[in-house]
Amino acid sequence: MSPKITTELLKQLRQVMKSPKYVQEPIQAYIVPSGDAHQSEYMAPCDCRRAFISGFDGSAGTAIVTEQHAAMWTDGRYFLQAAHQMDSNWTLMRMGLKDTPTQEDWLVSVLPEGSKVGVDPFIIPADQWKSMSKALRSAGHNLVPVKENLIDTIWTDCPQRPCKPLIPLDLSYTGVSWRDKIVALRSKMAERKVLWFVVTALDEVAWLFNLRGSDVEYNPVFFAYAVIGMNTIRLFIDGDRMMDPAVREHLQLDSTLEPEFKIHVMPYGSILSELQAVGAGLSPKEKVWLSDKSSYALTEAIPKAYRYLTLYTPICIAKAVKNASETEGMRRAHIKDAVALCELFNWLEKEVPKGTVTEIIAADKAEEFRSQQKDFVELSFATISSTGPNGAIIHYTPVPETNRTLSVNEIYLLDSGAQYKDGTTDVTRTMHFGTPSAYEKECFTYVLKGHIAVSAAIFPNGTKGHLLDSFARSALWDCGLDYLHGTGHGVGSFLNVHEGPCGISYKTFADEPLEAGMILSDEPGYYEDGSFGIRIENVVLVIPAETKYNFKNRGSLTFEPLTLVPIQTKMIDVNLLTQKECNWVNSYHHKCREVIGAELERQGRQEALQWLIRETEPLIKVQ
Amino acid sequence: MSPKITTELLKQLRQVMKSPKYVQEPIQAYIVPSGDAHQSEYMAPCDCRRAFISGFDGSAGTAIVTEQHAAMWTDGRYFLQAAHQMDSNWTLMRMGLKDTPTQEDWLVSVLPEGSKVGVDPFIIPADQWKSMSKALRSAGHNLVPVKENLIDTIWTDCPQRPCKPLIPLDLSYTGVSWRDKIVALRSKMAERKVLWFVVTALDEVAWLFNLRGSDVEYNPVFFAYAVIGMNTIRLFIDGDRMMDPAVREHLQLDSTLEPEFKIHVMPYGSILSELQAVGAGLSPKEKVWLSDKSSYALTEAIPKAYRYLTLYTPICIAKAVKNASETEGMRRAHIKDAVALCELFNWLEKEVPKGTVTEIIAADKAEEFRSQQKDFVELSFATISSTGPNGAIIHYTPVPETNRTLSVNEIYLLDSGAQYKDGTTDVTRTMHFGTPSAYEKECFTYVLKGHIAVSAAIFPNGTKGHLLDSFARSALWDCGLDYLHGTGHGVGSFLNVHEGPCGISYKTFADEPLEAGMILSDEPGYYEDGSFGIRIENVVLVIPAETKYNFKNRGSLTFEPLTLVPIQTKMIDVNLLTQKECNWVNSYHHKCREVIGAELERQGRQEALQWLIRETEPLIKVQ
Repeated sequence: MSPKITTELLKQLRQVMKSPKYVQEPIQAYIVPSGDAHQSEYMAPCDCRRAFISGFDGSAGTAIVTEQHAAMWTDGRYFLQAAHQMDSNWTLMRMGLKDTPTQEDWLVSVLPEGSKVGVDPFIIPADQWKSMSKALRSAGHNLVPVKENLIDTIWTDCPQRPCKPLIPLDLSYTGVSWRDKIVALRSKMAERKVLWFVVTALDEVAWLFNLRGSDVEYNPVFFAYAVIGMNTIRLFIDGDRMMDPAVREHLQLDSTLEPEFKIHVMPYGSILSELQAVGAGLSPKEKVWLSDKSSYALTEAIPKAYRYLTLYTPICIAKAVKNASETEGMRRAHIKDAVALCELFNWLEKEVPKGTVTEIIAADKAEEFRSQQKDFVELSFATISSTGPNGAIIHYTPVPETNRTLSVNEIYLLDSGAQYKDGTTDVTRTMHFGTPSAYEKECFTYVLKGHIAVSAAIFPNGTKGHLLDSFARSALWDCGLDYLHGTGHGVGSFLNVHEGPCGISYKTFADEPLEAGMILSDEPGYYEDGSFGIRIENVVLVIPAETKYNFKNRGSLTFEPLTLVPIQTKMIDVNLLTQKECNWVNSYHHKCREVIGAELERQGRQEALQWLIRETEPLIKVQ
Repeated sequence: MSPKITTELLKQLRQVMKSPKYVQEPIQAYIVPSGDAHQSEYMAPCDCRRAFISGFDGSAGTAIVTEQHAAMWTDGRYFLQAAHQMDSNWTLMRMGLKDTPTQEDWLVSVLPEGSKVGVDPFIIPADQWKSMSKALRSAGHNLVPVKENLIDTIWTDCPQRPCKPLIPLDLSYTGVSWRDKIVALRSKMAERKVLWFVVTALDEVAWLFNLRGSDVEYNPVFFAYAVIGMNTIRLFIDGDRMMDPAVREHLQLDSTLEPEFKIHVMPYGSILSELQAVGAGLSPKEKVWLSDKSSYALTEAIPKAYRYLTLYTPICIAKAVKNASETEGMRRAHIKDAVALCELFNWLEKEVPKGTVTEIIAADKAEEFRSQQKDFVELSFATISSTGPNGAIIHYTPVPETNRTLSVNEIYLLDSGAQYKDGTTDVTRTMHFGTPSAYEKECFTYVLKGHIAVSAAIFPNGTKGHLLDSFARSALWDCGLDYLHGTGHGVGSFLNVHEGPCGISYKTFADEPLEAGMILSDEPGYYEDGSFGIRIENVVLVIPAETKYNFKNRGSLTFEPLTLVPIQTKMIDVNLLTQKECNWVNSYHHKCREVIGAELERQGRQEALQWLIRETEPLIKVQ
């Protein structure tokens, strides 16, 4: 991977930072957050402004350019990738390490007195604006909104915003109609005494209306906003996609409906003016509910006294708890996904020794097997297919310049997933196609112990996911090893592969309590820079647990793995497992063999079935 | 324990809430926080306003009185105690339970439109004011400062504010002189570009000046504020205690000093006007640093643009990391404390079967043994001496009405500690003087497993304590048991037994990372309402750990127990321990026998020594 040369671009950016055409007064720093106007994690190409200006295209990162400096903040998943992709104009700020300054502290340390720091008000979330603005003000600087995005002014070949057809989802997939979701939302609004709710996150719009799209790669969402009143529904969306009869039928656009369920379709670009009109028409005590992650520009459209901001919206919370139809869909999707991976690993086992399989070929093959499965739509994220040292680049994606050939001498890590119409998958397996070293097995086994510790954890109802994070690390910590990423994230139901408001991470404290029906990933890892990466990831469903004393009827929870793909026993040092952990592996493999075996049989995939049977032989722990 | 009858008091309070003598306009609710003007946890009698109005005298709780209601918020430690101490005028709000409303939500639900909610601006911390005020304002109400404390107006026999002599501590105890502490503080101030620092917490004043007092029971502090400038030191303190030659000498009040180390002594009551004068004299960019836990009244004395508020002060953070002199002092204090407890438990073992030992007698006896030790000053908190069902009242203190007799049929829980001139102790042991039931042993063993899981945990440098909290619960959770309090708190060095900024709790997320030299408690428990309480508590020192791979030189930490008192092996179900846990207990007991045995020997306490030797016999785990 050669870094992007940014000298000329930075020069241009620094010019527009002083140009009266774009800024009232020159700004001394410009912030380029990762994110679009909906605070999406995955973005359409036209919104990848931070990647454009810096070359670093990981999913998380914030760039700040001053007259003298250019700096990039990102987290442990991306330290290596960012270092590789950026040229020497950029300073990498490794978030999570003790000596790394915050963006605010860094700005204060480099800016001349009384500086102006600019940012696009449509891109920066309201909460970030607030804290950044406060920190800068207290140091004598000012955060200022720059309406025209300055990156766009120098991005001459910026692609167009996508506007692809929509997919209506029927009740068999969603379990609840959009009308019933609106009713439930209005009841939450009534509880909080708000009159309006503004839906800004793309996956929340998609979930609310039981629609999916493909405007953003990997995430089945579409560019839209919605404003829900107690008696009105406004959907802000562009293009002729509302002309599709199936969509019109699904949204009942041409039916005679009670007025409170009539959807008013409006242009995507009119959200700000419409919201300003809503804001202007409010009487005292009439409130508008927004996420404080929504853009500064949108929250500012509502006078402060009328704003009701919360970290998580009622849609975000409702969406996280999957109903029976969604859970069954997720189960089906994971069975199909496991079939594809059994085929892939069986194929790799035969092909890798020939020395002809590269990371890209393996990733393509994984996609090929997945695409053979029913209701396959697309991948759920860019496949991380990495061997040897590339495995240590936590969110690596193979490109021709970095593409390594798989061999019997290196560890291979595959983190991949797909969108099926019935569910979203995300699974990581770490394999060795030759003979792993004792150290590789040792590290793998600690990671596995951590994976099991979370997956088998029992905890009282109402426990927040971040309280489980250390369980995943304990075995690694005992030997002085750790990994610089969280342990788990929420997973959508044919929606974004990363979703809130739950997760398992030492970094998040504002997560909502876990409850039965939530779906998360469990993915501890270990990474040795320059050598290898190990990660073991299942998607797991929160389910009620049986305990001896049941928390005085408060209730117990635990996890059930939805992912049913063998964990390579060759990589396990059985002596490091307790009997209980050994039993967990054996019972997990027993279930893989039963459930996935039956589906492989049904699909007539005999060779993959034989592979599955071999890979699910019970571990035997010698006492 | 019979509840305090508060009908008449509440009537009087509701009258003054409407009296033009005290409030400009009638207020519809009055908040009585726990805490004094220094946000102390333990208070002088004159500051126990919440206990006066409600009868509930636990260390944490907030009362809110409206025209119709009186409600008390407290946490799991105090649910039973509060329910016992309050009459039917009061509604108990059990914090931490899912259905308990926050104070803000509750106020919004009960107040008539456009209400005024009053609070003493000297008592409410600035951060609480801010969030409460915001929540009320967004619901159309107003939080208003009521200068005269309304409880004081109806508290006819309110005791005087104490003003006791000071104890100067020399270098052999503190390790660092107050001059050097001022120098270090000023360097932190320079880093943050602030000109003034306001010391409001009593333990921070005491620590900074290497002085101790006894104005507040159990906490060796004195009523004072300090304002530190880059060139001036102002100490706000009342009484003739500054006339004491030892204090004058210690503070060099009569020496010719560089002006920047000259201490200006001022009246305690002049802090507000002096701070207002400081605030009025500031030029742009001149900042005043305060804790956002300091009172609303004090922060308001500084114009907003000049305020620099942080959650933890540099003194709080420096104070938490004990230097070699302090650590050695803490070790000595814990050895003496263990000697006293060995004497006590040996005595109890003989006396309890006679049926003559009550909870109060046992607590007094513990104090008697402690007071025989060198440099004993006082207890560090009210002894929790509880048997049978009283043990389930987490912060119970025996009073004549509740005083139970210890017996061979009930579990006895003793949570106690002392202030010695060289250190502060806090230890809990749970004992049975007869034959514990299988269930009692089972619960005790789970608590022990949790205690060990924290104490033996190895974790990377920079880990925050709250990430270790679940380790303490895991064994309990597996069986559906839990406890509703945190696992550990910081412990001062001959200072407050509870101190920030570190702790081990699922509730705190803003704790500072753990580092070597910090001292905390490790105290999981289990409580069965109406039956028994179990808690096992050691004070532990954070020390560097040895690990195989040492986190790529990031460094490892673990804990070393300072408390060296046997854990009753009779209560342990050895079959539930792993071999590793069993080894931990044996090696802990070996150290108790060695270190405390030698001191018992030295003090000629042969009988207690024999008891210690019996109680530290190794556990044997049958395979």
